[in-house]
Amino acid sequence: MNYRHLFSSDVPSFMRSPVREIFRKVDLSAICSFAGGYPAAVTFPVEDLRSLPGLVLDKYGTKALQYGATQGVPELREAIAKRYNVPVSMVQITTSSQQGIDVCTRILVDPGDVILTTEPTYLGALQSFKAYRADVRPISSVRPPKPGEVCADAPAPKPHYKFIYVIPDFNNPSGETMSLAEREQIVALARELDIIIVEDSPYREIRYTGEDVPMIRELAPERTLHLGSFSKIFAPGFRLGWIIGPEELLEQIYICKQALDLCPPVFDQYMATEFLTSGALDANLVKTKAEYRRRRDLMVSLLDKYMPEGVKWTYPEGGLFLFLTLPEGVDTIEMYDEALSKGVAYVAGSFFYLDGSHRNTMRLNFSFVAEEKMEPGMKLLGEIVKKRIDGTKTL
Amino acid sequence: MNYRHLFSSDVPSFMRSPVREIFRKVDLSAICSFAGGYPAAVTFPVEDLRSLPGLVLDKYGTKALQYGATQGVPELREAIAKRYNVPVSMVQITTSSQQGIDVCTRILVDPGDVILTTEPTYLGALQSFKAYRADVRPISSVRPPKPGEVCADAPAPKPHYKFIYVIPDFNNPSGETMSLAEREQIVALARELDIIIVEDSPYREIRYTGEDVPMIRELAPERTLHLGSFSKIFAPGFRLGWIIGPEELLEQIYICKQALDLCPPVFDQYMATEFLTSGALDANLVKTKAEYRRRRDLMVSLLDKYMPEGVKWTYPEGGLFLFLTLPEGVDTIEMYDEALSKGVAYVAGSFFYLDGSHRNTMRLNFSFVAEEKMEPGMKLLGEIVKKRIDGTKTL
Repeated sequence: MNYRHLFSSDVPSFMRSPVREIFRKVDLSAICSFAGGYPAAVTFPVEDLRSLPGLVLDKYGTKALQYGATQGVPELREAIAKRYNVPVSMVQITTSSQQGIDVCTRILVDPGDVILTTEPTYLGALQSFKAYRADVRPISSVRPPKPGEVCADAPAPKPHYKFIYVIPDFNNPSGETMSLAEREQIVALARELDIIIVEDSPYREIRYTGEDVPMIRELAPERTLHLGSFSKIFAPGFRLGWIIGPEELLEQIYICKQALDLCPPVFDQYMATEFLTSGALDANLVKTKAEYRRRRDLMVSLLDKYMPEGVKWTYPEGGLFLFLTLPEGVDTIEMYDEALSKGVAYVAGSFFYLDGSHRNTMRLNFSFVAEEKMEPGMKLLGEIVKKRIDGTKTL
Repeated sequence: MNYRHLFSSDVPSFMRSPVREIFRKVDLSAICSFAGGYPAAVTFPVEDLRSLPGLVLDKYGTKALQYGATQGVPELREAIAKRYNVPVSMVQITTSSQQGIDVCTRILVDPGDVILTTEPTYLGALQSFKAYRADVRPISSVRPPKPGEVCADAPAPKPHYKFIYVIPDFNNPSGETMSLAEREQIVALARELDIIIVEDSPYREIRYTGEDVPMIRELAPERTLHLGSFSKIFAPGFRLGWIIGPEELLEQIYICKQALDLCPPVFDQYMATEFLTSGALDANLVKTKAEYRRRRDLMVSLLDKYMPEGVKWTYPEGGLFLFLTLPEGVDTIEMYDEALSKGVAYVAGSFFYLDGSHRNTMRLNFSFVAEEKMEPGMKLLGEIVKKRIDGTKTL
C-alpha cells in the first residue's frame, strides 16, 4: 500500500536528527564518541533512586500511580516555583524540555512564520521548528530600516515574526554564555518586534566556573517562555522539564497539552519532587558540577596537547559541550567517515547552522565519553585534523 | 502585554476537555463521581512496584536512567511484539496512547482534512483532531453514490478523507463492542476510500465477559494504526502506550517523535518491561478484570434498583464505562448543576457527539468511584432523573 497521498503537509519538512542517525548506525560503545549530548552516567543519583520509589509510594500512595493534573502535580510545580521565585501559576511541567520547545512552537507558529535564532543552535529545536514549517532565520537577518533611510524598491512584506529562540547559558553546541549586554539586546529586539523569547535553559544549573548572568526571563518576564529540564540535574530517563512563563501563554499550552499526552509522568514527577525538596538534588549537583569541570579541564588539556596549530575552541563555564573551529577549508562533514572508521565520533558543526555553513567546525561533548577513551580519542582526532590541514595546504 | 496576535491559527480550535474542567472546579473526593475515566486504584500493582525499581536498577543499571531510543527501548518493543505476535519493526512505544492519537493525526491531517469517526466517541481524540483543525465527521456521512444514481446538482468536491477513528472494544463512552461484521464494514470503507484506520484500543485487555472479537489490525494490517495503552493494565501514572502499524507509517511517526519529546520515559519503560515479561502483568490483570466485573455488576444492579422506567443502559463486556439513555426531552447538561450540587457527578453524553446531540444521554464510570458511595450516589441520580422525567411529562 502507498501512503504518500495521506501524509500531512508537515511531513516533508520533518527533519531527521543527524545525531540520532549516527546512534542508530554505529555502536558508539565500541569507539570514542564525542558526539551525542548524554549526561555522564556517574552523575545519576543511583543511590537516591534505591529509596525514592518506596518513599513516593509511602508518602503519596496510589495518587502517584494515577492520572495527574495536565499542568503537572501541584507538589512539583510548587517546588519549581519556590526554586525560581515565581508564582505557581507561572509553572507548567512538561514531558521533557523537548516537549517544551515543541508546544511553544505549536501555540505560536503557522507555516511560514519567522522564528529568529542565534547560531549555532540546538538541533532538536530546529527539528521542531521545521516540523511546523517555520521560516527559521538568524537574528542577524533583522535590520529594521533606519529613520530617513531611502527605499529603492517597494518594501517587502513584513515577515510574521513570532519568537526569538536562544540558549543563553552554555549553548548547545558552542558551550558559550551570553553576556548581560547580549541578553539585553535580545530583549530590546523582542520588544521592538513585539514578540516572545523562548529561553531554552537545560544547562543553566550546571555552571562550574564564573558567575551567573541574569536569565532573560528576569529581564523580560512578560514576554519570555523559559524552558527548564531535569535531564541534566536528575536523569534524562525521566522525561521531565518545565516552562516558566506568563499565565496567558501557559493557559494555551495547558489546553494544547491535554491533547498531547494528558499529563506528564506522575510517578516520575513525585520522584523529582522528593529529590528536589529533600535537598538531595543540590547535593548531587555539587558532585555533578565537579565531575563536568574535571572533564572539561581534561578535554581542554588534551586539545592543547593534540590539536595542531590553527585550531581554536571555546572554553565553556558550564554545560556539556565545547566547539572547535578548524582552519578554513577543512570540512568536518567530509572528514567524518574517516574519523568514524578510525574510531572517533563528533558532530559536524554545520548541522547547527541554518544554511549549513561553518563546515570547518565541530561539536565535542565531554560528559558522556568514558574517561580512559578521551586521550586516545583526542590523539586520533588530532592526527586526522592535522592530515586534513596539511592536505588543504598542498592544494 | 497582549499575545493574541502571536498565536498560531490552531489555537482558536483548541478544545478544553469538559471532563478535565470538572476536575479543576470540584473536589470530586467529596462527592460521588461517576465522571472521569480513572482506573480503580486497587488494580495498581503496588506490591510489584515495591520491588520493580530496584530490579530495574540491578538489571539495566544506568541505561535505565539515560536517554533512550526514540522508538522505545528494544526490550519493551520486543515484549509488545511478542504479546501481539507482530515483528518488532511494527512497534513504536509512545508517551501515552493519547500521544499515539496526537502523532497519528499530526502525520496524516492538514486543516480541513476529514477524519471519520463512530459516535459516541472519545473526547480526548476529538481534542486532538480539532487542535489540528480536522473536519471530523460521523462515518454515516459517507454515502458513496450508487451506480446509475442521478446527481441533480454539480457534485461537491470530494472530501479529503484521511482516516477512520474507532474504539472497537468497550468504547469510551458507550462501553459497547463492535461485532466482527461491523469491523469488516469499517475495513471495507477504509479500502474503498483508500485511507487509514486508527484503532484506539486502550481497554481491549480488560474483557471480563464474552469472547474476543478480532482486532481491526488483524483484518487490515496494511492500513491500521493500532493504539495500545499501559494505563489500564499497569498504571496511568506511567505515561506509556504503543502503536502497532505498517513500518512506512511508523517511520514518519518516529521522525516526528524525535521533535516531540526525543523518547518515551526510559525508567518507566523498563519497569513495564519487567512487569510484562515476568508474568506479573497477567497475574494482576486477572484481579483487575474480576474487580471491574464486580463493579459493573454492582452498577447495573443499582441502575435496576434506582432508575425510573424509560431509562436504558448499555451492558459492557469489558472496560470502565456504561452509557445511559434517558427519555427524550430530559437534558443531562441542564440537569448537571443540580446533580453536582446534590453530590453526584457524571459526564453528559452529548459531549461525545460531534453535533452535541443526544442530550438525553450520559456516561457513567464504575471503575473509580469508592464502592460505598455507589449506592447513595445512584439513588440520588435516580431521584434527580425521575424528577426531570416527571417535569417533562407535565410540560
